[in-house]
Amino acid sequence: MRLRVDLLPRRGTPSQPPEPYADTVLVVDVIRATTTATTYLERGATALLLAAELETALALRGPEVVLAGERGGLAPPGFDLGNSPLEAAGRRFDGRRVVMSTTNGTAAAALACETGQHVILACLRNAHAAARRARDLAAEEIVILCAGSGGRAGLDDIYTAGVLTEYLLALGEWSLDDGARIALTVRRQFADPLEPLTLSRAAELLVEVGLEADVAYCAEVSQSTSVPTFAGREGEALVFQ
Amino acid sequence: MRLRVDLLPRRGTPSQPPEPYADTVLVVDVIRATTTATTYLERGATALLLAAELETALALRGPEVVLAGERGGLAPPGFDLGNSPLEAAGRRFDGRRVVMSTTNGTAAAALACETGQHVILACLRNAHAAARRARDLAAEEIVILCAGSGGRAGLDDIYTAGVLTEYLLALGEWSLDDGARIALTVRRQFADPLEPLTLSRAAELLVEVGLEADVAYCAEVSQSTSVPTFAGREGEALVFQ
Repeated sequence: MRLRVDLLPRRGTPSQPPEPYADTVLVVDVIRATTTATTYLERGATALLLAAELETALALRGPEVVLAGERGGLAPPGFDLGNSPLEAAGRRFDGRRVVMSTTNGTAAAALACETGQHVILACLRNAHAAARRARDLAAEEIVILCAGSGGRAGLDDIYTAGVLTEYLLALGEWSLDDGARIALTVRRQFADPLEPLTLSRAAELLVEVGLEADVAYCAEVSQSTSVPTFAGREGEALVFQ
Repeated sequence: MRLRVDLLPRRGTPSQPPEPYADTVLVVDVIRATTTATTYLERGATALLLAAELETALALRGPEVVLAGERGGLAPPGFDLGNSPLEAAGRRFDGRRVVMSTTNGTAAAALACETGQHVILACLRNAHAAARRARDLAAEEIVILCAGSGGRAGLDDIYTAGVLTEYLLALGEWSLDDGARIALTVRRQFADPLEPLTLSRAAELLVEVGLEADVAYCAEVSQSTSVPTFAGREGEALVFQ
């Protein structure tokens, strides 16, 4: 089995198309989209709908639907919730569908769903459960796709990829690519997950808008067994359950 | 001063143009292009001409010109030399110009030269000298641009970026981006530079074509004071001196 870590979503160039995501993909945007997505399911949501565009999200409004998302760290106009996993953790969403629109995490998930056979949203909170699910689903390859931020690699995402890699190594034999070795190295350098997350640019941006409490929540490892898994499309939205 | 490490060349997307390389750029393709380039200058070459296309390189043929390069690890037809730094280290190139055409390293250098004010080819062998040169040239930002391989990050290049980052930290005060923190973490995890280089996919490919001795040469740190620095263009070729 092959284990590959993409430190950034790979879009290729005209002369060099990216290798497709063909088998099983773990999408990581630990601060905060994949952590928040995990929390919605944990708190009772029946489905998550990821929408790249705000208009797509707004068009899905309806009874028993919660609109959540962010632009620049804050909830867009007309949305019920921002992208705070702590805020989500304090509520119940039983019987409701949550429509999420974020920037980097949604884009990475969309890229993975273009070609991936199985796509899972992973974070530190569901790391163990997500690694097990991926291991169960994969035929020959798992790719951990780090969302990064605005085209730049994130220390938070790569640390999380390292934690996932470590769990996967405990579950089987893998040939690792350079990205997986880099992620594993980063994971092993930090004893406390809060440290790499706090050092990341993504955390700095949250501090700037007063949402630093989210960082500590995102840094909790394997507290959740919710594993948002791609279940199909509804119009332009990606459905995870 | 800002220090940024790009784990891969950033080409942006239609909706998200990459941040330009505006100030000083250290281009790293440690296995092998930037190591070989450093060695040519060290061994007396008066200039290096980097040509992306083989045809461009072949058109520069002439007296006192050496054609060097690789496709798939080996010298292209009609070339005098491959891309082996060890081979280069065993010769003298006094008074001669070396035309180089490689894949990843040449592409990364071309990207940096599009917008960069100062562009330097860096590797482990010239790491200290290259860091000092960059520090002397930079106005407010140094970017270490890792060439990677076919759009994938390389453990070898990121380790080298970490060594350069460590030298730069000894030379001044820097604000580090996530890429710099990742590179520094990787550098600190390995006591012997040969270990990350040997683990890299780039080294594996050299072993497959019988060129593993190059890896040990590429892993020698700060043995050279040659620092190939962008000096202008000659037709489609980039001139380094």
